[in-house]
Amino acid sequence: MRFFEDMPVGDRREFGSFTFTADEIKRFARQYDPQRFHLSEEEGRKSLFGGLAASGWHVAAVCMRLLVLDTQRRDREAQARGEAVAVGGPSPGFRELRWIKPVLAGDTIAFAGVIETARASDSRPEWGIVEFRNTGTNQRGELVFSFLAIGFVPRRGAGA
Amino acid sequence: MRFFEDMPVGDRREFGSFTFTADEIKRFARQYDPQRFHLSEEEGRKSLFGGLAASGWHVAAVCMRLLVLDTQRRDREAQARGEAVAVGGPSPGFRELRWIKPVLAGDTIAFAGVIETARASDSRPEWGIVEFRNTGTNQRGELVFSFLAIGFVPRRGAGA
Repeated sequence: MRFFEDMPVGDRREFGSFTFTADEIKRFARQYDPQRFHLSEEEGRKSLFGGLAASGWHVAAVCMRLLVLDTQRRDREAQARGEAVAVGGPSPGFRELRWIKPVLAGDTIAFAGVIETARASDSRPEWGIVEFRNTGTNQRGELVFSFLAIGFVPRRGAGA
Repeated sequence: MRFFEDMPVGDRREFGSFTFTADEIKRFARQYDPQRFHLSEEEGRKSLFGGLAASGWHVAAVCMRLLVLDTQRRDREAQARGEAVAVGGPSPGFRELRWIKPVLAGDTIAFAGVIETARASDSRPEWGIVEFRNTGTNQRGELVFSFLAIGFVPRRGAGA
């Protein structure tokens, strides 16, 4: 993870892409969101989604996976260069979680994050508070998923 | 699913409980949130969580599972009584997703939902718009998880 000072507003990071196959969509749905339009192509076609659709929680979980793996890869690369790596605080939650368009079987979603705001914490000056707008965009360039994550990020040289 | 007219503000529904075992926590984390404090008891103890902690997305997904299964069970019971069952519209998203306290290995979380607001849609009079406050509470009675879900709910006799 980067330090607060290395996170300018507007900074954009690509996390990677994922293709939601019918098998993956059904596997997640059986475990966590067993609604008919997530379990059957036919029921999906009859629904407002117009096809077998991934659970919104599946989309969120895949975004999280790619975000975490990308952060870990960047940390390893920074450590290999001999740089200090920041350890983030817990996230107090998310705001504005939106499923804007359905993710249908076969869709490939590219996930990315942009720093929307960054400010020093008033009560804990060794931390910064950063808002990340994380998004998913399909193979047609359409925004399908978005949420605003709030994170505590250590400031450089604050003894963190 | 119930019709708009059967959803008074303040109405409360229990979805069921789930015990987050260490195995389940690690299995979800390996797939979707491979951060160290979700994968190892020792790393969890060294973290701000103070123990092996479930991914927040795991908590959300289990809540969704119990909510969906409870809705399906109630639908089957209503159908068995010969009652009409409403078919809900898609959810445009959630607001105020909050992880208030860690969910640690061995914790049992009881999930429930309360209707916070209900109003007719201005643009589509055959639908109502209902906000549900969904929560998770641990075995010590502490609120650990909360989100506000917005749903389109059909009105009775509106041809839905």
